[in-house]
Amino acid sequence: MKGFYDLSELTRHDIERVVARALSLRNGSKTRRFEGKAVGLLFFNPSLRTQASFQRASQKLGLEFVQLQSGGNGVWGIEVDDGAVMDAGNAEHVREAAAVLGRFVDVLCIRSFAGGSSLERDLTDPLVNGFRRFAGVPIVNMESALWHPCQALADWTTLEQFEVPRRAKFVLTWAWHPKALPHAVPNSTLCMAAQRGMDVVVLRPRGYDLHPTAIGQAYELAALNGGSLEITDDREQALRGAKIVYAKSWASLETYGNAAQEAELRAPLRDWCVTPEWLARTDDARFMHCLPVRRNVVVSDAVLDGPASIVIDQAENRLHAQTALLENVFASLEQKPKARANARQPLEIER
Amino acid sequence: MKGFYDLSELTRHDIERVVARALSLRNGSKTRRFEGKAVGLLFFNPSLRTQASFQRASQKLGLEFVQLQSGGNGVWGIEVDDGAVMDAGNAEHVREAAAVLGRFVDVLCIRSFAGGSSLERDLTDPLVNGFRRFAGVPIVNMESALWHPCQALADWTTLEQFEVPRRAKFVLTWAWHPKALPHAVPNSTLCMAAQRGMDVVVLRPRGYDLHPTAIGQAYELAALNGGSLEITDDREQALRGAKIVYAKSWASLETYGNAAQEAELRAPLRDWCVTPEWLARTDDARFMHCLPVRRNVVVSDAVLDGPASIVIDQAENRLHAQTALLENVFASLEQKPKARANARQPLEIER
Amino acid sequence: MKGFYDLSELTRHDIERVVARALSLRNGSKTRRFEGKAVGLLFFNPSLRTQASFQRASQKLGLEFVQLQSGGNGVWGIEVDDGAVMDAGNAEHVREAAAVLGRFVDVLCIRSFAGGSSLERDLTDPLVNGFRRFAGVPIVNMESALWHPCQALADWTTLEQFEVPRRAKFVLTWAWHPKALPHAVPNSTLCMAAQRGMDVVVLRPRGYDLHPTAIGQAYELAALNGGSLEITDDREQALRGAKIVYAKSWASLETYGNAAQEAELRAPLRDWCVTPEWLARTDDARFMHCLPVRRNVVVSDAVLDGPASIVIDQAENRLHAQTALLENVFASLEQKPKARANARQPLEIER
Repeated sequence: MKGFYDLSELTRHDIERVVARALSLRNGSKTRRFEGKAVGLLFFNPSLRTQASFQRASQKLGLEFVQLQSGGNGVWGIEVDDGAVMDAGNAEHVREAAAVLGRFVDVLCIRSFAGGSSLERDLTDPLVNGFRRFAGVPIVNMESALWHPCQALADWTTLEQFEVPRRAKFVLTWAWHPKALPHAVPNSTLCMAAQRGMDVVVLRPRGYDLHPTAIGQAYELAALNGGSLEITDDREQALRGAKIVYAKSWASLETYGNAAQEAELRAPLRDWCVTPEWLARTDDARFMHCLPVRRNVVVSDAVLDGPASIVIDQAENRLHAQTALLENVFASLEQKPKARANARQPLEIER
Repeated sequence: MKGFYDLSELTRHDIERVVARALSLRNGSKTRRFEGKAVGLLFFNPSLRTQASFQRASQKLGLEFVQLQSGGNGVWGIEVDDGAVMDAGNAEHVREAAAVLGRFVDVLCIRSFAGGSSLERDLTDPLVNGFRRFAGVPIVNMESALWHPCQALADWTTLEQFEVPRRAKFVLTWAWHPKALPHAVPNSTLCMAAQRGMDVVVLRPRGYDLHPTAIGQAYELAALNGGSLEITDDREQALRGAKIVYAKSWASLETYGNAAQEAELRAPLRDWCVTPEWLARTDDARFMHCLPVRRNVVVSDAVLDGPASIVIDQAENRLHAQTALLENVFASLEQKPKARANARQPLEIER
Repeated sequence: MKGFYDLSELTRHDIERVVARALSLRNGSKTRRFEGKAVGLLFFNPSLRTQASFQRASQKLGLEFVQLQSGGNGVWGIEVDDGAVMDAGNAEHVREAAAVLGRFVDVLCIRSFAGGSSLERDLTDPLVNGFRRFAGVPIVNMESALWHPCQALADWTTLEQFEVPRRAKFVLTWAWHPKALPHAVPNSTLCMAAQRGMDVVVLRPRGYDLHPTAIGQAYELAALNGGSLEITDDREQALRGAKIVYAKSWASLETYGNAAQEAELRAPLRDWCVTPEWLARTDDARFMHCLPVRRNVVVSDAVLDGPASIVIDQAENRLHAQTALLENVFASLEQKPKARANARQPLEIER
């Protein structure tokens, strides 16, 4: 793999190989060691699982690693617009930040959430795509404005671990939350389940559709892989026969960037919290969530602490899936060693 | 050792073994190496010595390590209350944070100071105890609301290094400070000296007693180990014959959480600053402090820069004591390997 | 080398050896490995290149490393004044911070910018000099109030990489910027070019002279090494025949610490932005900048993205130059092993 931006870059076959490797690592297989190679971890947003699991994965692979955070005394504010006259807050352009870090490490992993104010801008995934354009080394997406492919890879691993049948019913349900959250996780969850060939249902209240791009991609992946996709606000019908209930909150696209309107829109929706009553309507479904999760808001204690919940294994699989991923990315580097030149190299988007 | 929450979990004999090992490491002994094992370092508060010494100790032991900080772009705000409806600031519950990190590393070290607003709450040591309940791996306390056992272990090491006799007089004195500080260090200092069997004197102005729990534990430990404990505000008498003067400021329990009342209470106490005149009344006492220390507020330059001060060795011993501690904790893991299971495991408080 | 505060501590011959080693590392030479040795990286200010390159350099050398940041939940605020009564914001004195960290690592690297409010104070370079006085181990300056010698070392390496003749014309030009920036980089750039024996021109508007100390040192170094130094505001004449245009913004010393006056002084100077027209007047000059750089403010896109720009190689050389530097510093330690003593050691300024 020459980087990892979005799960759908890979064929189902490729994904299955990485997932199988992740499960093998989970069961104690040894990793390859890439002595003298280095990975960069660059965080523009908070993170518990992602930081911890990427740090550990790097070390398991024998990699040197560089970690940087934005904010405070971390890295400088990064400008992404071409042609910007940089006389305001941002001190560094992504063109330089990316190109320089690409000289210090062999693979660069970036976390940068959606800004949440301009949908048009967030749909361009500006920061991660900026790094992809200018770093000159493979980029791994640790959650961008649009996608969280490492989460999706871990989720797929978790579905295999629990032997969830390929054609099982997978319900991605919206949940109430005090904040308008990014779409990266639901976009990736939706497409992951569709690409696995599952019978996917998106359960959400009116006004909370995912973006047509993600929906469209999910329909295509479902068709290609023998699954199906349905979008509904009928909770009863959605949950009937479900094998997986995957909860996640996300912002309304109709009120994007307008916190007051969004708050009004979701005010009547506090009962969108997964409780044992929800699970009782399913076919013994397991409960999944990417974490962090707000207890008794997104899901009740009784569900999280009950036998249906597999969220901790799901989180653990971040480590194994990402170790398998980085192992694959670094192995690919060996086939085509990083070019060395005195002058700047032509830039290309790495995939 | 299956974790390390409070020094008094260990017998004096156990402590002496760890201290002897710390001194041996100080003198250049090689550490064991735990290849492929990992420690997590999680900081909810500022730290110089603790961060630096735990990072270094981890590396000396050949451990992989994961470091996380709260605040800014670090980890999410953590909720600790059972049954909380998480619709306010905290994005993640300690149940998940602990369980997930416990899957990524073999031992987890936590720093989390007292909140300082509710005494009742601080006495439950909520965050560190939350991690102990839910992590499923040994927890090392890098300073909690109630205890700073790594400091105590380093202090005991320092007393041995300077060959301070077991029955020597050990004075823990309160000092003025512009802020109302937590009780973790004085609680642990008091109990450490009592457990070593020293003649312990707590010198403090009226209104600045330590909590009855810590005092009670110290009396028990003194009785068990052949020492004594006295609490006084008579400076002259306290210092007479002292071999150690250990300064530390702490908040009044009488005005806990009320900054204005506390400021008023301590306003007349600025002469509680250790000067050469204090030391002149002792039996050639050495001066100790956990650092950071406010010069010419808690202790005068003349004391800190004079021959009585052993604060730098005391701080250096943080490294050696913690290296010995982690070596012991990781060695214990080998006797009972971490269980692997697909489903969640029953949680237990690790000690 | 017993530490590295300022490039001029070294003879040109010494620098040339380190630079040659840097270029050899750039071309793939293996580093020495210092197993069991440790370096501390302490950051009081934001950083992208410095953090990433020092982390990577440390790992390439097989060093254990401790990284600390100030602010937030990082290290405590540090007091530097002798005799201070520390009853305000700073919780720790540099005397303790330095001495303690000097016990945990073998070499300590510090980044601490100028405060920018008191010129008199900044000229004493208080924090880095505090660490040099009290750490008891070699200090490496990762940019202080006055100097950025690692940048200068990387710049010299870059000049060799591009085979810029020794007597070539080197123009250090001031540029407009929305903020009043520190003098560390221009001071070090100026003295580096002078010490290399180049024909150095400082091009700046009236009111933007560098400090007499740096200017004086540069004149001496130029004389000693067969070069020359000229200071002018005549752009046409400065650029004529130039082989290097090195842009950098810095604060006026005349309005130091007064943001409003400074803003007024520089308001009419927005055309101090390096464009292709500037380069057209040179002798095919290459463009250099230490980064981060504000596009279309300090330099136009057309220059940065054009063939004249060597800023990415310049940044990459930070890694190689610092790897060579640390290799040298750690090799020096082997000749005179760090003393071990129970009591505190006499303090000395390490060079």
